[in-house]
Amino acid sequence: MAHRVLHFIADFFVYETAKSVVVKSWSVGIINRVVQLLIILYFIGWVFMHEKGHQLRDTGIESAVMTKVKGLGKFNNHVMDVADYVVPSQGGSSFAVITSMVITANQTQGRCPETEDKFKCTTDDNCMAKLGSNLGNGIITGTCLNTTNGKTGWCEIEGWCPAEDDKVSEKPMKEVENFTIFIKNSIRFPMFNVTRGNFPSSLNQSYIQSCHYDPVDHPFCPVFKVGDILRHINQSLDSITDKGGEIGININWKCNLDYNVMYCNPIYFFTRLDAAFENSVASKGYNFRFAKYHQSEDGTERRMLHKAKAIRFEIIVSGNAGKFSTVPFLINLVAALTSVGLATVFCDIILLNFHKGADEYKAKKFEEVSGDVSESANNRHCEGSQMSIKALEKSSNDSGTFSIGRQEAHSSSNQ
Amino acid sequence: MAHRVLHFIADFFVYETAKSVVVKSWSVGIINRVVQLLIILYFIGWVFMHEKGHQLRDTGIESAVMTKVKGLGKFNNHVMDVADYVVPSQGGSSFAVITSMVITANQTQGRCPETEDKFKCTTDDNCMAKLGSNLGNGIITGTCLNTTNGKTGWCEIEGWCPAEDDKVSEKPMKEVENFTIFIKNSIRFPMFNVTRGNFPSSLNQSYIQSCHYDPVDHPFCPVFKVGDILRHINQSLDSITDKGGEIGININWKCNLDYNVMYCNPIYFFTRLDAAFENSVASKGYNFRFAKYHQSEDGTERRMLHKAKAIRFEIIVSGNAGKFSTVPFLINLVAALTSVGLATVFCDIILLNFHKGADEYKAKKFEEVSGDVSESANNRHCEGSQMSIKALEKSSNDSGTFSIGRQEAHSSSNQ
Amino acid sequence: MAHRVLHFIADFFVYETAKSVVVKSWSVGIINRVVQLLIILYFIGWVFMHEKGHQLRDTGIESAVMTKVKGLGKFNNHVMDVADYVVPSQGGSSFAVITSMVITANQTQGRCPETEDKFKCTTDDNCMAKLGSNLGNGIITGTCLNTTNGKTGWCEIEGWCPAEDDKVSEKPMKEVENFTIFIKNSIRFPMFNVTRGNFPSSLNQSYIQSCHYDPVDHPFCPVFKVGDILRHINQSLDSITDKGGEIGININWKCNLDYNVMYCNPIYFFTRLDAAFENSVASKGYNFRFAKYHQSEDGTERRMLHKAKAIRFEIIVSGNAGKFSTVPFLINLVAALTSVGLATVFCDIILLNFHKGADEYKAKKFEEVSGDVSESANNRHCEGSQMSIKALEKSSNDSGTFSIGRQEAHSSSNQ
Repeated sequence: MAHRVLHFIADFFVYETAKSVVVKSWSVGIINRVVQLLIILYFIGWVFMHEKGHQLRDTGIESAVMTKVKGLGKFNNHVMDVADYVVPSQGGSSFAVITSMVITANQTQGRCPETEDKFKCTTDDNCMAKLGSNLGNGIITGTCLNTTNGKTGWCEIEGWCPAEDDKVSEKPMKEVENFTIFIKNSIRFPMFNVTRGNFPSSLNQSYIQSCHYDPVDHPFCPVFKVGDILRHINQSLDSITDKGGEIGININWKCNLDYNVMYCNPIYFFTRLDAAFENSVASKGYNFRFAKYHQSEDGTERRMLHKAKAIRFEIIVSGNAGKFSTVPFLINLVAALTSVGLATVFCDIILLNFHKGADEYKAKKFEEVSGDVSESANNRHCEGSQMSIKALEKSSNDSGTFSIGRQEAHSSSNQ
Repeated sequence: MAHRVLHFIADFFVYETAKSVVVKSWSVGIINRVVQLLIILYFIGWVFMHEKGHQLRDTGIESAVMTKVKGLGKFNNHVMDVADYVVPSQGGSSFAVITSMVITANQTQGRCPETEDKFKCTTDDNCMAKLGSNLGNGIITGTCLNTTNGKTGWCEIEGWCPAEDDKVSEKPMKEVENFTIFIKNSIRFPMFNVTRGNFPSSLNQSYIQSCHYDPVDHPFCPVFKVGDILRHINQSLDSITDKGGEIGININWKCNLDYNVMYCNPIYFFTRLDAAFENSVASKGYNFRFAKYHQSEDGTERRMLHKAKAIRFEIIVSGNAGKFSTVPFLINLVAALTSVGLATVFCDIILLNFHKGADEYKAKKFEEVSGDVSESANNRHCEGSQMSIKALEKSSNDSGTFSIGRQEAHSSSNQ
Repeated sequence: MAHRVLHFIADFFVYETAKSVVVKSWSVGIINRVVQLLIILYFIGWVFMHEKGHQLRDTGIESAVMTKVKGLGKFNNHVMDVADYVVPSQGGSSFAVITSMVITANQTQGRCPETEDKFKCTTDDNCMAKLGSNLGNGIITGTCLNTTNGKTGWCEIEGWCPAEDDKVSEKPMKEVENFTIFIKNSIRFPMFNVTRGNFPSSLNQSYIQSCHYDPVDHPFCPVFKVGDILRHINQSLDSITDKGGEIGININWKCNLDYNVMYCNPIYFFTRLDAAFENSVASKGYNFRFAKYHQSEDGTERRMLHKAKAIRFEIIVSGNAGKFSTVPFLINLVAALTSVGLATVFCDIILLNFHKGADEYKAKKFEEVSGDVSESANNRHCEGSQMSIKALEKSSNDSGTFSIGRQEAHSSSNQ
């Protein structure tokens, strides 16, 4: 029993390594090394240097954005300041700057005629057909108003009266071009516990108050002029104030944390977010309605309805950070080493098929055991030592000329 | 010196390939090919076709959402339009549609009795015990009001008076079922710089104004009827307007950019977001409070407090895009090729243990070198050529019958 | 023809396995096993147990957050409740709690002097130089007001008058420390279709109304006291109410779905989001402006401008879930198996260079074929059987002593 355990341990610590055939051939040797070199270059250049295959990547960036718009404009002879034109007011990552409004003042609940063209009528039947429509300014009652003398009138609605007439158009607030947006963005890569801000702490108050972002001259300035942004996305002010629009301010963090964290800085770029709908005939632009509510002395509620065309800004923060990590590094390294071994597959094909002396290589590389080998083995054991030469001769044939036809198939199965 | 360099170069360009043993056995040959085939099928079918192992995947989708609700309802004999019931009004990705409100009009700062049951009292001591509570409508002063004749009264509060009494309940605005939500979603995959909108540019204005989304008939219609959404998530209008609720409109982009980008379209699905709390006894539904502020002629500030039950809609955009990329392709290909080689491990186990003639295969596969081989090698060198037959005979034994016991251990260490 | 097909099939089902050299050496055998053991331990411990290399990871967490603040405070002798100090009111994932305000009541459109120090003037020229400035409370007209007797005056502005004077400072609302934030967070891992809420359904109403989150005692309580949060991030109330600030409430879901989904619970942690700008001299804190609009009986619009300092809370939900999946498991397993094979590379270096009897091992491991082998092969074929001993002798030399110098180079190319 102890003997068997000992035997097992001895067997366990036996070392096994592949037997190799060494071919002293300049042509195949050079091809082999060149192919290996190409594979190594590919891994170093592409997998490791370009694709950062040795880094663990944190794509779960956490971000907090604070914005502050500054600027004064004139709309309809009123001076508009931040509290008037920025909605919502809290300075989050998504906000709209109102550039023009259609204001319907002093609305109260009641009944009055529609103003939309699609609710024109000549008889009550025209309006009955539109009962339940969601497209009017109020609930269609089914009555056609102002139709004396056969004139075209409007369907009556129940709701906030008078109805909004959004065909009135005021000149938009052009000063928006000079408005500035201050962006404070602080991000965190939770995997590496790295926190960064979008501008260095060393920037002083007066620089921040006077600078405007420029990718070349002021890459760290966190103040963006609306006019500059429009220029970056090749849009004129008119094209965007005409119907309203959405602008994305992308803050992209791409950090290689193998270097000093000081180099982890964002890149800004700007997009017109509704660009995907640029060629769409329907639903262009951006507008929304809101109301300011008042109460008359007699207690009736009045409201001032605003249909606002606006530029909506969305601060979109994206990014990822990479840092050396053993798991992806080793997986890619093993892939690289294994791939280097694949050069042999390629060279074997050449060596065993297209090289002079291919047959001889085959004879050396492949050693054959036939399915009925056990019988010949038995024979060999029975035969005396004087027969061993012959047996060896046979064995030499086994891995030699005898099996050439055989091996052709093999080499092709290698391909 | 030059000779050594030359020698080194010659050695460097030597080609080395593994020496193979070829077994002409139908059974093992077929098993080998079948196992290889299974491995290849697994990689093609699962890794490459199903899991898209050859693609680089961009999960950092960037999204901008614009929404517009349409519809008219009646609540408490008032007609409510978008400006009244959508909060916030700017048409972002998260908004609430108010379905009922408890309105407490004409509140001013002052002192008045509580309305909540938990602030009932008979003596001032009852109220002193509740000083500092956050659950009342105002700051508890410690006085118990209206307790004449031993009747139960209410604790006095300091704050906006009169206090809200939210036990009043109005019938919710049932018309919400017919409201429509228009969603404009534009996304971007930054890794591939692909921008897409949730509906094709070719849709015309009249289609968008009249269609309602349906997964089968109108998959590209970006207008969603609230009633349809409720049907999709198996909720009745009553169940959601009763206490308010949260509905998620998921827009899922799963794009295979190896095909034409035209096939990169979203799939919509709907969830009740508070479903995780469905069985919770506490904190059901969704409501919030807001106030509209007025100023009396005498300068005192008054407010109109609204406790609103609402359906909150959240547009959740998710998705990823894949595109052929060499790095993941090669890593998976190398894994595949290496795995194909693992068939040999499996077949060796069979061949060397369970196949007839296993001993002979072992003899062929393994060639032994013992730790004290150097001595026998020295002997061989000293002996004359007449001895070489015997030496060879021994060598033949080395890789033959002699080491069978040995090899058993080997094959088991292979397992 | 049929013969060739048969031949091809026979060749196809031939089994090929690498020929191995077995070395019975305790030292190399033990080194080999130890290296293999280290590699296996590394993969089990790090790749599989720590990095969960066998799991598919869903990082695209979908989240919906509902918040509700409770508490009553006093500011400027007014009692403030939720409707007064929470902006926006809808209970989303980002909201501000106003702690102090500078209120400028009864503003109307008109002309009046500035209040900011940078718009002090003695002559109109001072003000002309500031035309177009975005930093004032209104549009600079270019006139200097109140300069009689050489006294310093202020530039005139056109806009909402009187201009805000934010140098007035009221005591902040200290009661914010006792405010509580109730957070309802429901998440979903789309890849595995797992939905979870941040507290169990079994919690009852009275527990939720009375508990305060504590990482040790009440880890499932979804109610957070502002004072507790400030303690967690080591901030005093004064430091944050002084200039306002941003606090992040991170809800981190890290779920191992190989276990029961009941163990998939969030971890909360708190950060001061503007920490990245802590040392910045510029733009500290958090404040924003909003206005409440009133209408006088005579129809002129008045507003009440609020400059609010606030604590902004951002609920940041992050996380990922892992579940066993065959693709990452197999890729890592193949990497593991391949890596185990790399032990051979290491041991070959030792065996072929630093071990006694290295030459003999080389002779066994490497079998040489020279580039001009075909000639000698031809010779062999021509020679009779009586020559075969010599040929074999030569062959034995081929893989023996003859090529030792040769093999040195090889082993070094292995390094």
